[in-house]
Amino acid sequence: MTNQTMYELGNQPSLIRELFAYGLAQAKVVGPENVFDYTLGNPSIPTPDAVTQAIKDILDDTDSIKIHGYSMAGGFDGTREAIAANLNERYGTDIKASNLFITCGAAPALISVIKGLAVEGAEIMAIAPFFPEYRPFVNNNGAKLVVVPADREHFQIDLAKVEELMTPNTQAIIINSPNNPSGVVYTKETLTALAELLTKKGEEYGHPIYIIADEPYRELVYGGVEVPFIPNIYKNTIVCYSWSKSLSLPGERIGYFLVPDACENAQEVFLAASGAARVNGHVCAPTLPQMVIERCVGEMPNLQAYDDNRTLLYDSLTAMGYRCAKPDGAFYLFVEVPGGDDFGFCMKAKEEHNLLVVPGTGFDCPGYMRLSYCVSNEMIRRSLPAFEKMIADLK
Amino acid sequence: MTNQTMYELGNQPSLIRELFAYGLAQAKVVGPENVFDYTLGNPSIPTPDAVTQAIKDILDDTDSIKIHGYSMAGGFDGTREAIAANLNERYGTDIKASNLFITCGAAPALISVIKGLAVEGAEIMAIAPFFPEYRPFVNNNGAKLVVVPADREHFQIDLAKVEELMTPNTQAIIINSPNNPSGVVYTKETLTALAELLTKKGEEYGHPIYIIADEPYRELVYGGVEVPFIPNIYKNTIVCYSWSKSLSLPGERIGYFLVPDACENAQEVFLAASGAARVNGHVCAPTLPQMVIERCVGEMPNLQAYDDNRTLLYDSLTAMGYRCAKPDGAFYLFVEVPGGDDFGFCMKAKEEHNLLVVPGTGFDCPGYMRLSYCVSNEMIRRSLPAFEKMIADLK
Repeated sequence: MTNQTMYELGNQPSLIRELFAYGLAQAKVVGPENVFDYTLGNPSIPTPDAVTQAIKDILDDTDSIKIHGYSMAGGFDGTREAIAANLNERYGTDIKASNLFITCGAAPALISVIKGLAVEGAEIMAIAPFFPEYRPFVNNNGAKLVVVPADREHFQIDLAKVEELMTPNTQAIIINSPNNPSGVVYTKETLTALAELLTKKGEEYGHPIYIIADEPYRELVYGGVEVPFIPNIYKNTIVCYSWSKSLSLPGERIGYFLVPDACENAQEVFLAASGAARVNGHVCAPTLPQMVIERCVGEMPNLQAYDDNRTLLYDSLTAMGYRCAKPDGAFYLFVEVPGGDDFGFCMKAKEEHNLLVVPGTGFDCPGYMRLSYCVSNEMIRRSLPAFEKMIADLK
Repeated sequence: MTNQTMYELGNQPSLIRELFAYGLAQAKVVGPENVFDYTLGNPSIPTPDAVTQAIKDILDDTDSIKIHGYSMAGGFDGTREAIAANLNERYGTDIKASNLFITCGAAPALISVIKGLAVEGAEIMAIAPFFPEYRPFVNNNGAKLVVVPADREHFQIDLAKVEELMTPNTQAIIINSPNNPSGVVYTKETLTALAELLTKKGEEYGHPIYIIADEPYRELVYGGVEVPFIPNIYKNTIVCYSWSKSLSLPGERIGYFLVPDACENAQEVFLAASGAARVNGHVCAPTLPQMVIERCVGEMPNLQAYDDNRTLLYDSLTAMGYRCAKPDGAFYLFVEVPGGDDFGFCMKAKEEHNLLVVPGTGFDCPGYMRLSYCVSNEMIRRSLPAFEKMIADLK
């Protein structure tokens, strides 16, 4: 008497959430200092003081009815103008407020775009390793997910595989850089070559193939690495963004989708995604956070703590003999599992050491594990003997 | 190259939003004091001071990482416990935190439940007049909306029509009381008779027929009228709620769905609706508002301003000769259009008087117009000559 697909999705929470819940429960048994939880991408850096101050200022200087009233579906004009101006300043673009639709975070932004592009038979590609929720997001919103196998050498994009898997039904390819789970940033060379391929295939098929750039980690990079702004490389790029990671506001659900004018059928795509948002019950994005973004769009996170964690964890694990993708961005390490059995490793780590890591299989990349290093530096230090013991046991 | 259904939904904004946008534009031309905008259900009473104070207190007394971090998908335990305790105290129920799933407002709550119940061929009923978005919410989420014509005498529920329109595919009936747009509260007698009918037909069909109680206006009643708590009348009731109206927080997107244990297949329905939320990109409801609700769940709005508006508008219009449904709740009057041509009346009112009212046709009840009286008392006073002129012209 219920929709079985929805029931199954509700009854099988993501493995990440399950491990996280296990960690919370186990902390009550063995003490939180003895649980090493690397599962969740929940920022561990506080939001900038400017954000907290902006909330207080808004409460004091703005009429409460305006703060908490509805905005138009796409968001307040002032917020959209501030975002457009910030992007234009940073990337030399010509984005207008009307190209932006503010959403309750990146997930509904992605889904609106996917659903808007979901014509009969539509295929949407994702490049392994990828965020596991892409699968229900695509497959349960009218399209079919096509998985491009991982480039296990550099975790860039295997363009030959992309071309091989393309069909006239290919509507879009999701690009997530800095990448969850690998922490890798796609280079300008990779993206330029991808753009050439998409242009060629788009001409062959007689319709554009869009890049859906899922960019919540855009600002989380280390060592001066550049994250190319994809609309400047490929015109048919739709950007989905959230401030969850960059301003440490994941709980407040604030993001956007952006369809630049240069996109083919820009207006049609924007309206289709807006219609999809409406069907999914989007009324407007939360208004107090919208006002905060208007005032704080130029704020940048202080990434020192993540960078320290990254260095400590990467250096320690590689010294022990673990092999790891080069982690230039986001807050994840993607580590080769010694012996290759990622599920076995993760279960053993959990049961013997209360060490919680996520199997790569969930990201369509078996043989690896994801470590979220948005944790305390102390937890990393305390967890190192467990990693040491795990690799020793496998030798 | 885009999904045409989504495109059309994005390209045809609701008439209400269109009239509202016209009003904003017209205010710049003729001055805001000469536009009489009765279109939008945007609360005009400020949120209680306790809410503003709670936001400030939380910012001062809670760790910023906790405030703005993810919650579990269904919401913080503390928030859900506070809501359950409040409902149990008010209605003598036995609701548990685990029966509640906190959402980004009532719209996604409704859609999650609809989508969770949308088995092959599913029909979901709505009783005219009803909120126009029910149509895309149901028809574009896997079910079919079946409209029960209005009881134009009392704006209660025409049970003979409900029975006539039921089929073995009927999964649920949406009940919205206090009603948007009529302002009518369904009586205990109406609901008890409906419950008997649904029980009888459920037994006949061999499956439960759920009530989906859409209750954002539950606390907005005047003159001591009682709003029955439907789960106490009919066990197969799923409640969808939001604090948009009761705490004047529509922009902050905070509500819930509630599946009491007494519902048949309660756990299955809860999980199916949770799965639907996941598919629609729900990650969690905004966390700062969740914490506010935990502290302010017992707050009640000061309805005096709405009550004053209701009395002024109702008394003035009926004195002029307009006829109106008995407005016991919400903040709407549903007024019979003299002459019966609701579109013609609304267009003339708009063009000749900058008087913006919504045609009843949009609510599946032609011949009426909806006036949202969540406006300033002064605007109502200034608008009265326009109503006077409109009815005089039609005589």
